[in-house]
Amino acid sequence: MKKRILWVNTVGWDAYDQPIGDVLAAIKDPETEVEVVSLALEGQLTHVEYRAYEALTYADIVRIAYDGGRRGVDAMVIGCFYDPALKEAREVSGDMVVVAPCLAAVQLATTLANRFSVVVTRRKCIDQMVDRIREYGAHDRLASMVSLNIGVESLQQDPETTKAGIIAAGRRAIEQDGAEAIVLGCTCEFGFHEEAQKVLGVPVIDAVSAPFKLAEHLAGLKLQFGWSPSRVGSCEPPPAGEIERFGLFRSAPVLGNRLIV
Amino acid sequence: MKKRILWVNTVGWDAYDQPIGDVLAAIKDPETEVEVVSLALEGQLTHVEYRAYEALTYADIVRIAYDGGRRGVDAMVIGCFYDPALKEAREVSGDMVVVAPCLAAVQLATTLANRFSVVVTRRKCIDQMVDRIREYGAHDRLASMVSLNIGVESLQQDPETTKAGIIAAGRRAIEQDGAEAIVLGCTCEFGFHEEAQKVLGVPVIDAVSAPFKLAEHLAGLKLQFGWSPSRVGSCEPPPAGEIERFGLFRSAPVLGNRLIV
Amino acid sequence: MKKRILWVNTVGWDAYDQPIGDVLAAIKDPETEVEVVSLALEGQLTHVEYRAYEALTYADIVRIAYDGGRRGVDAMVIGCFYDPALKEAREVSGDMVVVAPCLAAVQLATTLANRFSVVVTRRKCIDQMVDRIREYGAHDRLASMVSLNIGVESLQQDPETTKAGIIAAGRRAIEQDGAEAIVLGCTCEFGFHEEAQKVLGVPVIDAVSAPFKLAEHLAGLKLQFGWSPSRVGSCEPPPAGEIERFGLFRSAPVLGNRLIV
Amino acid sequence: MKKRILWVNTVGWDAYDQPIGDVLAAIKDPETEVEVVSLALEGQLTHVEYRAYEALTYADIVRIAYDGGRRGVDAMVIGCFYDPALKEAREVSGDMVVVAPCLAAVQLATTLANRFSVVVTRRKCIDQMVDRIREYGAHDRLASMVSLNIGVESLQQDPETTKAGIIAAGRRAIEQDGAEAIVLGCTCEFGFHEEAQKVLGVPVIDAVSAPFKLAEHLAGLKLQFGWSPSRVGSCEPPPAGEIERFGLFRSAPVLGNRLIV
Amino acid sequence: MKKRILWVNTVGWDAYDQPIGDVLAAIKDPETEVEVVSLALEGQLTHVEYRAYEALTYADIVRIAYDGGRRGVDAMVIGCFYDPALKEAREVSGDMVVVAPCLAAVQLATTLANRFSVVVTRRKCIDQMVDRIREYGAHDRLASMVSLNIGVESLQQDPETTKAGIIAAGRRAIEQDGAEAIVLGCTCEFGFHEEAQKVLGVPVIDAVSAPFKLAEHLAGLKLQFGWSPSRVGSCEPPPAGEIERFGLFRSAPVLGNRLIV
Amino acid sequence: MKKRILWVNTVGWDAYDQPIGDVLAAIKDPETEVEVVSLALEGQLTHVEYRAYEALTYADIVRIAYDGGRRGVDAMVIGCFYDPALKEAREVSGDMVVVAPCLAAVQLATTLANRFSVVVTRRKCIDQMVDRIREYGAHDRLASMVSLNIGVESLQQDPETTKAGIIAAGRRAIEQDGAEAIVLGCTCEFGFHEEAQKVLGVPVIDAVSAPFKLAEHLAGLKLQFGWSPSRVGSCEPPPAGEIERFGLFRSAPVLGNRLIV
Repeated sequence: MKKRILWVNTVGWDAYDQPIGDVLAAIKDPETEVEVVSLALEGQLTHVEYRAYEALTYADIVRIAYDGGRRGVDAMVIGCFYDPALKEAREVSGDMVVVAPCLAAVQLATTLANRFSVVVTRRKCIDQMVDRIREYGAHDRLASMVSLNIGVESLQQDPETTKAGIIAAGRRAIEQDGAEAIVLGCTCEFGFHEEAQKVLGVPVIDAVSAPFKLAEHLAGLKLQFGWSPSRVGSCEPPPAGEIERFGLFRSAPVLGNRLIV
Repeated sequence: MKKRILWVNTVGWDAYDQPIGDVLAAIKDPETEVEVVSLALEGQLTHVEYRAYEALTYADIVRIAYDGGRRGVDAMVIGCFYDPALKEAREVSGDMVVVAPCLAAVQLATTLANRFSVVVTRRKCIDQMVDRIREYGAHDRLASMVSLNIGVESLQQDPETTKAGIIAAGRRAIEQDGAEAIVLGCTCEFGFHEEAQKVLGVPVIDAVSAPFKLAEHLAGLKLQFGWSPSRVGSCEPPPAGEIERFGLFRSAPVLGNRLIV
Repeated sequence: MKKRILWVNTVGWDAYDQPIGDVLAAIKDPETEVEVVSLALEGQLTHVEYRAYEALTYADIVRIAYDGGRRGVDAMVIGCFYDPALKEAREVSGDMVVVAPCLAAVQLATTLANRFSVVVTRRKCIDQMVDRIREYGAHDRLASMVSLNIGVESLQQDPETTKAGIIAAGRRAIEQDGAEAIVLGCTCEFGFHEEAQKVLGVPVIDAVSAPFKLAEHLAGLKLQFGWSPSRVGSCEPPPAGEIERFGLFRSAPVLGNRLIV
Repeated sequence: MKKRILWVNTVGWDAYDQPIGDVLAAIKDPETEVEVVSLALEGQLTHVEYRAYEALTYADIVRIAYDGGRRGVDAMVIGCFYDPALKEAREVSGDMVVVAPCLAAVQLATTLANRFSVVVTRRKCIDQMVDRIREYGAHDRLASMVSLNIGVESLQQDPETTKAGIIAAGRRAIEQDGAEAIVLGCTCEFGFHEEAQKVLGVPVIDAVSAPFKLAEHLAGLKLQFGWSPSRVGSCEPPPAGEIERFGLFRSAPVLGNRLIV
Repeated sequence: MKKRILWVNTVGWDAYDQPIGDVLAAIKDPETEVEVVSLALEGQLTHVEYRAYEALTYADIVRIAYDGGRRGVDAMVIGCFYDPALKEAREVSGDMVVVAPCLAAVQLATTLANRFSVVVTRRKCIDQMVDRIREYGAHDRLASMVSLNIGVESLQQDPETTKAGIIAAGRRAIEQDGAEAIVLGCTCEFGFHEEAQKVLGVPVIDAVSAPFKLAEHLAGLKLQFGWSPSRVGSCEPPPAGEIERFGLFRSAPVLGNRLIV
Repeated sequence: MKKRILWVNTVGWDAYDQPIGDVLAAIKDPETEVEVVSLALEGQLTHVEYRAYEALTYADIVRIAYDGGRRGVDAMVIGCFYDPALKEAREVSGDMVVVAPCLAAVQLATTLANRFSVVVTRRKCIDQMVDRIREYGAHDRLASMVSLNIGVESLQQDPETTKAGIIAAGRRAIEQDGAEAIVLGCTCEFGFHEEAQKVLGVPVIDAVSAPFKLAEHLAGLKLQFGWSPSRVGSCEPPPAGEIERFGLFRSAPVLGNRLIV
């Protein structure tokens, strides 16, 4: 079954498109077609560690979702562990399913373990992510939030340091906090989960593979069973005529080239 | 004590600036200076009933907050009952306090009564507002959400119908759901609370006066006690140098003229 | 990728094996191998509407899970919407993933909608299922539990009545309770979701397809990423030596023939 | 008032029958008649530290409850701090009340103190017991779970070590975690509470005395006021005819001799 | 075992002493000695339907508890379903256990059924009682609060009307709200539970018998096991010297004669 | 706008009247008239660290509220961080608004920060205050409770020690527990917040200024918008005739002179 997946790097910078695309190419189902895009923001936004930065990305995430739904994409992943604009994007995504890393990781971790910890980049992120986990109903399953004290931009610059940090943080979470699975709480922590899992001996769920494979899974359900986002009640989308009249959703403002993998 | 308050109509349309400005002029402290602005969005957005519309406003709300903090505004009100971008805006507001209608109404209603109901425009809004009320810790105090079945744009077009609807909804909430106070769940329901309160015999809290007066109160606390937003932990703002380097916050993109009242 | 899935009908009766097997054959991935079994209980147990009946199935569900893990099955589905013995079975399943209908349906429904209702067979089931949904952290998303007032055994006897009942119950949930997706809260409600979905215009998630496809998805993750159940902390399994010494897990006590589809 | 109480050791091993019987003989009301039984499982199960072991006991606990209700027993205690099959057993217990240690200890501890800790055998047990305490609504009152790091089977082998461990764990809970009462979280921690209480200076509630005396109390209420388990709604038992037709509940499969004390 | 129980009618009126005393005499254990007192308030307070009235009783409830503890009473019942001053009284009760009707009824109802409703006198009481039930962790088990619309003082004036009202309210709770047990939410609803239970077919728990028998049970545990209220952490009592120096606790200010039954 | 505010020191000792009055005189709006009173209790109660002491104050707090409402006071502050008798006093306060320190501090702290800690006098207070914070819906925002280990009476005796203790406790809360704002959890911790705030670099909210300024704010809302306490449902006050007939509310029993500032 051919599935079309759209991965959105929620930054105004296309430097992550190729490495994330490489990861996705390596893990996708053979028939899946993947598109990787970044946002065409004013200014160069290389990370979204701050709520204020995140706010700058909301409009374009929604526009890309609207566009994706109209272009026949099956599922879209919002590529940031804060899961920014998830419900907002889903509201206008038509039949396209929309997922995000924190949601995917929480669903998976609570299926494989009773208690999990999240390894985050900096203490700054913790409160916001805990709120999201609470919203997803998994707060009682959260053993701890553990910080690497490494900024997002530095994660891939010195991979050995990052890997060692993840393993140390994971061990602490397992031994002291009772974690039974580890979630990597940033999409830029990609490339480390396999080795960390081998060393730590518990499931280590990374924030790229988990949401991407969930997107493929849900794209399949959509195609096979028609299970696409609800459009009634609080899921009601704006009327098509009004969207047009307001002139709100120009074609999706993606940065540079759309990377197809 | 002179206080500077900034009211943001979170729409891309300046038609509400004068009427809201008139309301604020009538209720403000004599020494308070009020500025009313709308957003300079692409396209004309006359309401934000949908999450997708709301997402379009996030970036500019944050930019206005950043600008307000630097211009020495004491407190800002985000003029929409969804309280959009409240934490996001506060993150970059410097010493400026940021509030919003749902927060203000919930704090007030739970101080004056044990259980309250919210009169919303349409059923569409309920789930999202209940989530916000849950986030504010007041869900156990919520008697019910009652819908007027009137779109935001129609609220002020036929005031008599709206008023009658509010009174009927409020009465239902009091008699059937056990409400002891009524919150008007949309800033465009302004102008009705006095008469509704007289008829219903319980506090009727409107979504313009409550947050505006809270803003004045908090502006006073800031000036008198230095109680401005925290800047540590999850309240850490982006580094000033990074904001400049990224070129993210142009001067605040407000629509038309800034109305000063 | 070849995946081996084991579906367990948690009754002491093999009459459901063929019809469920037919459903699974129709929806499985081409390469997936499915095995359908029932329990070899003393006495003929044709349904598990009661907690006391369910208790009779716990030992054998666990034994089948233990056996499945040792035989190299990738994922097992416990085929009852009460999700009986889910954590118990997972504790001894080795690398085999274990899922169940309520878990799968809740994860899916909350991804596609903000609020969902469950259509159950009889009022008797409601309290227990609500507890399960609360355990899964989705209680705040539950619009209502709606009862068909049809016993499990009668669901497939008069399919037209059942279908009409599901549609009527779903409509009530949508219109009166604010449901945005409908979950069919019994595995024996299979065969109705497509038509109900067409009529109701919201996702209608059935309790066979959802957990089965989740099992396939998770089997894939296990094979691709090594994401199998955690084995530390509260997920620690009994020591192999002790299991042997106690003589507890005979070969899996399945009923009649294992149906392979 | 003569009361008939049935204590069930939820293991497939009768070695605990005499020591538990001795404890009960020493604490029972003079007129109470106590019966102590173990389970006639296949294989010798000497403890239920694991969920998978517990699952093996469910069917027989339910059968013993069914039989007890028909034989005119007034109250039954499920003698394991996981409270296994409590609701399941109660469903078919007729007029017989069913209780269990965790329920009894939590009710008592929250009546005598605002915050309590539970001293458990091994870290393995904590997550499951916390879930049970949450189900009983006492999670906000839980100061901590403290582990002895002693397996169930070793508790009575070296009583001095166990006692010293309980006292040390209790002291830690009081001083560091703010516990105001201590619950012994395993029925095999019997015989230690008196001395621990004397040393620690707070109520130390043991998992044999508390549920047994609660059973006597409830047996009295049943005889005096007719307060026996509800049989409507989610408490509806299976129809008598169906139980017979299914052949599910043979006479209670107890191990060796029923010990009468 | 001789137990000394103190029942406190939390009103400034001794008219309930004899009828409550008669009820207790009929249900007490033969060896139990019961004392019934009312409060010697300024002014004649015949009921405590209002929070403000309740506040007037706090000081004397605490004084009676202090006195009871020093006089060697084993357990005290605060005879009002609001459970006024329960933790306050327990703080100074020495070795005397203190219980109250709502606590006792909730513990019992959740042991006999999964969901219960409370039949209250007037709608006024509901919010406060729901808060208490939430504090006791049983809110998830609460099917509904049903009002008789009969003031406390009228309950015993026209017993037939009250009885009919209780039965009608109970039936509504069972049929419409899914109640499986009924709690009578006022101590002045005594004398009706037996007949209501017979008619309704579910446990009907009255607010005199349940707490009184719990008091006897806990008095027994205290005498047998030394399980009396904790005196550490948040249960720390005021220093004896300070109490004396402050001159706070005169001899217990009870009304008229202490009725001994 | 002239506002009349009544501050109640909930002790039977007038030694705090002048120092608290001095604080209020320094921070009040120019036109506000403030009255400071203490309670005319039997015995000299110099602090209310214990629940039992608090209970002694309930009746007089309610009487003062009743009297205040009739004398035309606009808002009353119950000057103790336990917020004793808050709902009770509000029930009979007529049009007078009633607030208290914990409520005010929690509303303010959650507006300025995402997580806050409370610096309390002694560990004894923690459990009760956490319950209050939970009742106010802010428990998820509570980073920690930190104890000074200084009794209430000693706070102002050695101010330098107290100040150093507050700063050390606040630093610990910020660095170890993730606090982003500090609340001083006792009205007698007045006089320290300014310097602590300067040193700690986060908002430090004191328990006198915050509720007093909230009282002024709410007094203003009452005068301007008629937003006074609800009088329906669970906020229904006792009937005037009954109050008179019962002879319950003598003139407010305040201690010594009413201090007017």
